[in-house]
Amino acid sequence: MIPHLTTALTGPLQELEKRVLESSTEIEHWFRGKWQEHTPPFYCSVDLRNSGFKLAPVDTNLFPGGFNNLNPAFMPLCVQAVMGAIEKICPNAKDLLLIPENHTRNQFYLQNVGRLATILRQAGLNVRIGSLNPAITEPTRIEVEGGAALLVEPLLRSGNRLGLTNFDPCTILLNNDLSSGLPDILKGLDEQFVLPPIHAGWAVRRKSNHFAAYEEVAKEFASLLSIDPWLVNPYFAVCGEVNFHERTGEECLTSNVDALLIQIRAKYLEYGIKETPYVVVKADAGTYGMGIMTARDASELRGLNRKQRNKMSVVKEGMEVSEVIMQEGVHTYERVNDASAEPVVYMIDRYVVGGFYRVHTEKGVDGVLNAPGMQFSPLAFDDCCTTPDHTAKPGDGPNRFYTYGVVSRLALLAASVELERTEMAA
Amino acid sequence: MIPHLTTALTGPLQELEKRVLESSTEIEHWFRGKWQEHTPPFYCSVDLRNSGFKLAPVDTNLFPGGFNNLNPAFMPLCVQAVMGAIEKICPNAKDLLLIPENHTRNQFYLQNVGRLATILRQAGLNVRIGSLNPAITEPTRIEVEGGAALLVEPLLRSGNRLGLTNFDPCTILLNNDLSSGLPDILKGLDEQFVLPPIHAGWAVRRKSNHFAAYEEVAKEFASLLSIDPWLVNPYFAVCGEVNFHERTGEECLTSNVDALLIQIRAKYLEYGIKETPYVVVKADAGTYGMGIMTARDASELRGLNRKQRNKMSVVKEGMEVSEVIMQEGVHTYERVNDASAEPVVYMIDRYVVGGFYRVHTEKGVDGVLNAPGMQFSPLAFDDCCTTPDHTAKPGDGPNRFYTYGVVSRLALLAASVELERTEMAA
Repeated sequence: MIPHLTTALTGPLQELEKRVLESSTEIEHWFRGKWQEHTPPFYCSVDLRNSGFKLAPVDTNLFPGGFNNLNPAFMPLCVQAVMGAIEKICPNAKDLLLIPENHTRNQFYLQNVGRLATILRQAGLNVRIGSLNPAITEPTRIEVEGGAALLVEPLLRSGNRLGLTNFDPCTILLNNDLSSGLPDILKGLDEQFVLPPIHAGWAVRRKSNHFAAYEEVAKEFASLLSIDPWLVNPYFAVCGEVNFHERTGEECLTSNVDALLIQIRAKYLEYGIKETPYVVVKADAGTYGMGIMTARDASELRGLNRKQRNKMSVVKEGMEVSEVIMQEGVHTYERVNDASAEPVVYMIDRYVVGGFYRVHTEKGVDGVLNAPGMQFSPLAFDDCCTTPDHTAKPGDGPNRFYTYGVVSRLALLAASVELERTEMAA
Repeated sequence: MIPHLTTALTGPLQELEKRVLESSTEIEHWFRGKWQEHTPPFYCSVDLRNSGFKLAPVDTNLFPGGFNNLNPAFMPLCVQAVMGAIEKICPNAKDLLLIPENHTRNQFYLQNVGRLATILRQAGLNVRIGSLNPAITEPTRIEVEGGAALLVEPLLRSGNRLGLTNFDPCTILLNNDLSSGLPDILKGLDEQFVLPPIHAGWAVRRKSNHFAAYEEVAKEFASLLSIDPWLVNPYFAVCGEVNFHERTGEECLTSNVDALLIQIRAKYLEYGIKETPYVVVKADAGTYGMGIMTARDASELRGLNRKQRNKMSVVKEGMEVSEVIMQEGVHTYERVNDASAEPVVYMIDRYVVGGFYRVHTEKGVDGVLNAPGMQFSPLAFDDCCTTPDHTAKPGDGPNRFYTYGVVSRLALLAASVELERTEMAA
């Protein structure tokens, strides 16, 4: 099944999907060339939003946590992609250390870890799980609903190598986004492959670096397809020094939001779009939808009350927000049984391996679907996003999913470029 | 569904499957190492036979013709594998010329060509089809039941490049096994990638070269798993100069068949196998099950009547047989609804991408399932052969299929070694 679009204005999306479908050979050829120049991150998930007049990524996660939400039918694609990735990165790898997030009680997340470990094992790796959580002081069996229990072990650092008791892996796979900073135990691991590299963690990473790289990628892609890059690219701006508690940087926020809204209104006028433009304001580093708000007018950012300022000033792990990204809001007009549905596309190495819809019944079209404490019900994609059907119409299942996969790979490519640049800067 | 084994003696196979499952990490690691040293052929299908006490390849096809028989659910695996193969071989490839077999009326084969072209297109290649058939003198539309029509065009040679009108491809993919010899039009194409290489065609290829390489691969694999290589390796012998019409070479055949039967009987004794050993006698070059017979005793090869000699002396395209391979017969004890079922496993690059059972109701356990004019009904594998389940028993669906995939990849590796050697000899 595929969600239906609830907006009348689907012309621009149909045009985009038509161009993507017509150009699939050029697109794949272009990606092949790009992957000769750039190395994709080990894995990645991309949150897309589809307004019917625009299909764009709004978040690119380099530590994806929802493998359990993917269609089990496409697990073989994940296994094959991991085989290819390992062969390129460290063909001699046999032992792999997986480092998950510290929260050991979230059953959804634990299911993700279990699924990920299974994929890695089926790809021929000997996988053990080590935790950064100081509470894990001995091998600990953690039950997982509907799956095998996980054995989580304390990390063991010896010299410049990281491992576990009787386990000296050649590869370390992080499924922990390092929101609370880079722990000492991960520093200076020059002899082992750390995937993704530690500068992909939120201690270093900035969304604005990602979207700056994405903008370049989107422009080149748009030129290849002779389309307006705006159809796949959300406008954004950054403020470097904001302190919500002390109310500093407010001027930077409001002037940038103003400027963004003017840009967006011009595009809405050009395409005859009747919607109200909005901007999403969020922490430039960090994740989990904390420190995030929307604004339809710059004035909404003036004189925030204490509760709003508190909400905006911290992200996961209690980190203070000082850098803020403002991003063009993309309306979600995809609906499953009247609920908003935001597609999330999963990639391993340079391959799309599936995805799911984050389906939410309570939020409106410009709500933020990935907000703190929010429940969503995942709806696995029926389709793997790699089998466009040239005999079917643009917008038909396989072609809609193929377009998702193409736009997500633009974000994947942007992540590669972003990581190259931040590695050089580090 | 998975066929059931109809023999009581399944101990050796269970032991093999158990060892394969226990050693999956070692096996995948070993294959990864092998693919660093050897380049797999672009694609390959392997006919397996499963006697319950032995699981072995009996034929390795480098121009597989049954992609239409694979489970459509696993097409994304094919697409992903082609993407990986193209990226390694010729990342800049955009245009690909597919050269199929000449017979344009076999609907099953045409469906295979259609499926293959779709996979290649979905992997991002611009595919056109060119024919070696001299009857194709202009672009010809060929209807395919249940699919899009194929446009088959005459080949166009210019200098040392091969193409079609307004089509100068960088890659040529052969789905034609060159049984009738190497046509001049394919000679000296030094500037283009020809996949698989032309010495993979039956003009050069010999089954005995393949099984000699397979024996070495099987021995190394068996040593890795501490098992008897015979469990996966059929004995074989060759006679170089046989003329069935003139009754020369008969002595070579009978003495070798005698020797093989003695070897096999010794193994049957060792494992307590009560079956009657047999040997399959077939052309060392060529395909399509012509020129093939079975013998339970060397005497069956003495004094063949005219009809038998005629049958043995020609293979596809009327080529004369002079080199003969004798191979240990492996009983087929897999049954689907009381019909013999022979698994055929498909690979692209180094990845298993699916398979099907060749189900035949008429032949007995030692019959040859791939005989001329024979009808079989294909039963697509439910499973992709790459997701072993360590929580299930050996012999359970995913694990039986995983074992198929492992043994088939041994044959794939043997094909790589074989092609390296015949390239050097060429």
